[in-house]
Amino acid sequence: MKIGRILLETADGPMPRLVSVHPERKLVLDLAAAYRRQLMADGASPRMAVRMAAAQFPGSLTEALETGSAFTDAIARLHAGLDERDGIPLSDVRWLAPVDPPVLRDFNAFKNHEATAPDVWFEVPLFFKINPSTIVGPDESVVWPFGCEHLDYELELGLVIGGSHRDLTPENARQALFGVTVFNDFSARNLLRYEMDGRLGPAKGKDFCTALGPWVVTVDELDLTDLQMRATINGEQWSEGNSGSLVWSIEEILSYASRSEPLVAGEVIGTGTVAGGSGWELGRKLEPGDVVTLTISGIGSLTNTVGKPETGGWRPQARERAMAR
Amino acid sequence: MKIGRILLETADGPMPRLVSVHPERKLVLDLAAAYRRQLMADGASPRMAVRMAAAQFPGSLTEALETGSAFTDAIARLHAGLDERDGIPLSDVRWLAPVDPPVLRDFNAFKNHEATAPDVWFEVPLFFKINPSTIVGPDESVVWPFGCEHLDYELELGLVIGGSHRDLTPENARQALFGVTVFNDFSARNLLRYEMDGRLGPAKGKDFCTALGPWVVTVDELDLTDLQMRATINGEQWSEGNSGSLVWSIEEILSYASRSEPLVAGEVIGTGTVAGGSGWELGRKLEPGDVVTLTISGIGSLTNTVGKPETGGWRPQARERAMAR
Repeated sequence: MKIGRILLETADGPMPRLVSVHPERKLVLDLAAAYRRQLMADGASPRMAVRMAAAQFPGSLTEALETGSAFTDAIARLHAGLDERDGIPLSDVRWLAPVDPPVLRDFNAFKNHEATAPDVWFEVPLFFKINPSTIVGPDESVVWPFGCEHLDYELELGLVIGGSHRDLTPENARQALFGVTVFNDFSARNLLRYEMDGRLGPAKGKDFCTALGPWVVTVDELDLTDLQMRATINGEQWSEGNSGSLVWSIEEILSYASRSEPLVAGEVIGTGTVAGGSGWELGRKLEPGDVVTLTISGIGSLTNTVGKPETGGWRPQARERAMAR
Repeated sequence: MKIGRILLETADGPMPRLVSVHPERKLVLDLAAAYRRQLMADGASPRMAVRMAAAQFPGSLTEALETGSAFTDAIARLHAGLDERDGIPLSDVRWLAPVDPPVLRDFNAFKNHEATAPDVWFEVPLFFKINPSTIVGPDESVVWPFGCEHLDYELELGLVIGGSHRDLTPENARQALFGVTVFNDFSARNLLRYEMDGRLGPAKGKDFCTALGPWVVTVDELDLTDLQMRATINGEQWSEGNSGSLVWSIEEILSYASRSEPLVAGEVIGTGTVAGGSGWELGRKLEPGDVVTLTISGIGSLTNTVGKPETGGWRPQARERAMAR
């Protein structure tokens, strides 16, 4: 199944709603609306049907996944009796990022071209964390952060966690995986290079915009070892790769991520960039107004337009080394 | 005011509850219970009073702060007519971490002793992010992560954000700050040193346990430029410092944190370790069973006991450099 989130106009203003996506029928199913209708057909009052539908299908995928298998069980029942009245034409949809993760990590698990990569890159699947407050969805504008002189995309697969797990091993790690989505880890190259000298990892170079979407596809629909990955800028193909070139498997990523710390429902983990999957590797830069589309076979296409450079951000005044020690 | 979270036994099992803390009266006030009682005194039905109290005072400080000034306004009204019947003796309380932050960052804003610190440390207030799923509260056990050979504490001040803000400047940054708490950034020194060679920043060396508490004190009660900070291990003082030795001010931390990315309600930002505020700087290590207490004047004491080393975590098998490029 394919699960997305849309912004729906309501009497209370625009509200996020979970939908299942049916590209072949060119519609999405408003899950709360369909469930409310099903509950009423089974005798629920309108008031209690609304309340139960809001509990099972809130606007947050994280909260929905926290309901456990009740979530997918309820969707399966709705799909068995799919009522076109609850369908919304794909062309009318205003997408949101399909996930609202409580934690956003990004690994470095593909083959890479860095001749100077340190030994630790080959010894453990390294990762860093991104501020999840900076996530955008399909068609949303990409923030061009203050001080950025080289904006870049990164073509990645996003892993969506289905529930709470800890200390997984490659043998049992797949149970943690609900689905996958397209993950564009937008990066400010000059800010990254600058701050990574401080050894605390990416901060302003990554924490401004990560795009996720267009929806989450559950793992039963895909062969995760053979997904074609492609990036086009203004319609021109810049990058191409395949998930089969992962050096650390998805099971190994999940095992290391969960070692002595929990994975939680709704959390998203990027695989890192497929080789050649960024402008940096090609000597190219994004410009304001560029249209960036990442496509992964079996999932779909995630398109974002690069925004205007932000100006007027606060610039720190350097401290005297002698004063600060 | 002082706001904490406790675990309360209910008919639905143990549930988190927000409380205001009154150390001078040796009690906490269960905010949802007090508000329910106030609403009923004003004519609300028991059912609707419970529902409204759960909306204004949920178990999550983040969600409560998302209600805006309604949160502190409601508390002020409750305190004006404080009913001892809603008080719970401090001695009966089982504390939780007072905050459930959607984002957890840690800066490096105090004077430091690293002779070899890179230039960028003195040019911008650097920070990294910690997995907020690993937060513990007062009296909770400290995870000793797999592979850790040098467990350490870090004595820090935690800044709690009150609402959504972006692109703050030192002149207006204080509006973002709801309150402060004690922040113990437990660290696995050998894991940190190892993984930080990979330039992606702290991961397994930090993402296993951060302690917050005992409660959040609102900024109106404190002079943030003169807070005494102290760490004792098994009752012996190891570390001492003062918030006045910050090299980057709290206003500068908030300004940089919010540059081209949002601050959000409930998010927590550590200042970094006060000089001498860790065992690493003193050549000392924590041991299983050690009792670690951090105290900050005007806030309180946060005590945690070090747990047993975890065993049996998954150990990656190194990749051949030639295969991974």
